[in-house]
Amino acid sequence: MAANTSDKLQQLKELLAEVTDLSRAAALLEWDQETYMPPGGVQSRAEQLSTLLRLSHVRFTSDEVGRLIGELEDELGGRPFDSDEASLVRVTRRDYDQARKLPPDLVAEVARAGSVARPVWEKARHDENFGLFAPYMEKNVELNRRIADAIGYEDRPYDALLDRSEPGMTTAQLEAIFAELKKAIVPLIADIARHADAIDDRVLYRGFDPDLQVSYALGVVKRLGYDLERGRQDKSTHPFSTAFGPGDVRITTRVSRDFFNECLFGSIHESGHAMYNQGMGHDIDRTPLWGGASPGVHESQSRLWENLVGRSQPFWRHFYPSLRSVFPEPLQGVDEEGFYRAVNRAYPSLIRVEADEVTYNMHVLLRFELENQLLEGTLKVKDLPEAWNALFKSYLGLNVPNDREGALQDIHWSYVSFGIFPGYTIGNLIGAQLMEKIHTDMPDLDAQIETGQFASLLGWLRKNVHRHGRKFTPNELMERATGQPLTAAPWIAYVQRKFGALYALHAGRY
Amino acid sequence: MAANTSDKLQQLKELLAEVTDLSRAAALLEWDQETYMPPGGVQSRAEQLSTLLRLSHVRFTSDEVGRLIGELEDELGGRPFDSDEASLVRVTRRDYDQARKLPPDLVAEVARAGSVARPVWEKARHDENFGLFAPYMEKNVELNRRIADAIGYEDRPYDALLDRSEPGMTTAQLEAIFAELKKAIVPLIADIARHADAIDDRVLYRGFDPDLQVSYALGVVKRLGYDLERGRQDKSTHPFSTAFGPGDVRITTRVSRDFFNECLFGSIHESGHAMYNQGMGHDIDRTPLWGGASPGVHESQSRLWENLVGRSQPFWRHFYPSLRSVFPEPLQGVDEEGFYRAVNRAYPSLIRVEADEVTYNMHVLLRFELENQLLEGTLKVKDLPEAWNALFKSYLGLNVPNDREGALQDIHWSYVSFGIFPGYTIGNLIGAQLMEKIHTDMPDLDAQIETGQFASLLGWLRKNVHRHGRKFTPNELMERATGQPLTAAPWIAYVQRKFGALYALHAGRY
Repeated sequence: MAANTSDKLQQLKELLAEVTDLSRAAALLEWDQETYMPPGGVQSRAEQLSTLLRLSHVRFTSDEVGRLIGELEDELGGRPFDSDEASLVRVTRRDYDQARKLPPDLVAEVARAGSVARPVWEKARHDENFGLFAPYMEKNVELNRRIADAIGYEDRPYDALLDRSEPGMTTAQLEAIFAELKKAIVPLIADIARHADAIDDRVLYRGFDPDLQVSYALGVVKRLGYDLERGRQDKSTHPFSTAFGPGDVRITTRVSRDFFNECLFGSIHESGHAMYNQGMGHDIDRTPLWGGASPGVHESQSRLWENLVGRSQPFWRHFYPSLRSVFPEPLQGVDEEGFYRAVNRAYPSLIRVEADEVTYNMHVLLRFELENQLLEGTLKVKDLPEAWNALFKSYLGLNVPNDREGALQDIHWSYVSFGIFPGYTIGNLIGAQLMEKIHTDMPDLDAQIETGQFASLLGWLRKNVHRHGRKFTPNELMERATGQPLTAAPWIAYVQRKFGALYALHAGRY
Repeated sequence: MAANTSDKLQQLKELLAEVTDLSRAAALLEWDQETYMPPGGVQSRAEQLSTLLRLSHVRFTSDEVGRLIGELEDELGGRPFDSDEASLVRVTRRDYDQARKLPPDLVAEVARAGSVARPVWEKARHDENFGLFAPYMEKNVELNRRIADAIGYEDRPYDALLDRSEPGMTTAQLEAIFAELKKAIVPLIADIARHADAIDDRVLYRGFDPDLQVSYALGVVKRLGYDLERGRQDKSTHPFSTAFGPGDVRITTRVSRDFFNECLFGSIHESGHAMYNQGMGHDIDRTPLWGGASPGVHESQSRLWENLVGRSQPFWRHFYPSLRSVFPEPLQGVDEEGFYRAVNRAYPSLIRVEADEVTYNMHVLLRFELENQLLEGTLKVKDLPEAWNALFKSYLGLNVPNDREGALQDIHWSYVSFGIFPGYTIGNLIGAQLMEKIHTDMPDLDAQIETGQFASLLGWLRKNVHRHGRKFTPNELMERATGQPLTAAPWIAYVQRKFGALYALHAGRY
């Protein structure tokens, strides 16, 4: 046991590499389940996943890992904050403490509750009957509370949950940022609704050959910088991106003949996630530092490419001619400006995952507020649909016709997952915050995009975001990349400018 | 520790289930590597596989597993030999002892030797230069010897290696059977060579649309009984079948426009393997009893469907009309009899994996003899090519033009694997031995096949072979299914009858 520091570091890395391998194997099993697994494989797959995840958890939370972290914390005290070694020990400590704070019984109960609630949620949603699901939602809220208690918090129970997904963020910080958002966006949404006629997007529904859509989308994301030597595209019911290591980062897509946006923007979105993983340093591979800094930061990469690049005018100046040559019939009579406008149509709608760039965050904000109220007991589960519908009306101006399109729409509440939703809005904000800085650093970015050059943009993201993996918290990362922590101002300015122009809103106001 | 027998059994089963899950996860990782993994994934995949297989090995060879087997052997003494419980303990004991007999250092050295030798073998084969590979082959022979010594044997070192793959078989048993084979087949091969003109197989090379071939083959194997709710077909460079559980047993295929046999017969072959796995009892799932009784028994299922069914006259009476409607152009002017004859053309050739039904076993026999001589020191590695070429000439009548098409052709000798080759011939013999019994039990089998009915045949195999998994050794299984242990007589009678007719050989002789 008289091992020196470098031996201990090596020992810790070997244990963590094994844990990584088990999780990555599990990720491949999940990818296969969503893409190619035959129906009969369900039961064996569940057994295999459960074994891999259990072994990975047991090995990670072992006393040996704890002892090594403890000793290395003492011995590595002098290393710079951003060194691989200090970061490894710091981030592993965070993960380790969180994992150890959850009693195994609670972990098992959470898993069980999710499996039991899932089919009930499906039926309740199908039947548009929240009452059916209410008892499971009660349990869900209780378990979220018990997790918050087990992890501990100073101020608000939500802090504990938030810290698991967006380390360093607090409920108070988000409330302040979200209040600013709301103040700016609720009136913008209403204003756009009054000018709805300004954009005609019927071209998107004219029918686009599915195979051609998939191959066109693959060509686009390759052009953006998604490396197919280290990735691939498959089809799945719900698109996702997943990584099994620096050399194998995959995306999936779905395609609809009758709605153009699904395949192309979905593929760009997933390739944004994938390019993040492809850009992580090899030196941090097989450690807890390899991965996205948080779901919010991960989402910033997908939304940046999907919206700030993929729905921009320079992007379509470059791509529209090739798109038109691939789809001459549906695009007949539509010019590049018209197509750019069509893919940017904004309008209040009921379903979060189908929402446009402007309204999307409002869907997130109301979930964040409701989760907090449920957790703190100021809202009863039985009153959730009513509270949902009231907030929806006030933020988006729509009446919710039923719970299927209301409080039952997301799968998230069918398992124990409070604290996840904010990441979607954090991602939008970070994307705009980064883009503002990028435009300062690269004044000719638009001109580059217009000529189909994306390498400098990707290079900037690699250098300032990707390569760091999980070394920094979201706020630390933003401080380093842009000079300040998370802020809503760049995103608000961006949508006001873009949609003010698209909808010819009162120029002075935006 | 005062656990009762049923607790101990449960405890052992849980440990074994975990080991199974790890191996099945590894099998999926290997499947993915051969089908969809992007080139960049190689390194991470090797790490993941190594971790999964190491953990699986460590858990299986733990003292706890040994203690439980030992105690259960005492306590389950009264259970019938073929009961699930007695079989579980018996087979687990066999696997456990074999695994524990190999020192971890030797296991590591074997793995390392394989990785190091593989690229050298590839280069040596490419350069047609056995000398380059000779030092690695020396090491290979030495390691095979050390494995044999570690496992132990009474009579011949090869017995120890054979027992790992074909439990219960001895070198002496195989030598007797193979001598009988040789005596019958060497003259048959020579006789066929003299009547080579009797069959014209040029139709097979006329060009068949690859996509249509793949979908036709899938239709055929579905018809045979391969359940696609619990399986699927993908493409890979080398066709294989793999199982991740009773509900997920997959096949891969490859297709050549210019050679018809590859896709259809390859698919039937792999589906034979797959139907075996699909037919194993659910009650033995996630235990060491779930799997093929041996590589030889597994091969018997693939060869039975590929050759004894797929290359039979009743089969083509049923399928030829639909084949002709799918491929009217290349099949123009060829009738069912002509096509049946074409797919059965037999002729001495250099490469084992391309060999026909008659000559195939001779390729195996010569490898078996050479492995024995190398292991026992009566043949030096440097003299291997010469010995190969001499045997080849005497068995198949061909001069081997170079080592690429001679002693360097198989990947097997690039890693430490003596004792594997016999399984291919054992598979052929078992297939014919089973089929002889099936014809006795089901006198109308040919009529069933002619009308495209395969359910009774599959049902017979399920009942007598598939459902038992690894409960019985190959000889035990054959005793139970046919009344006698492995014998060459049915296969010899089958090829003499079939090829005697096809080539119009002297009727009295065959």
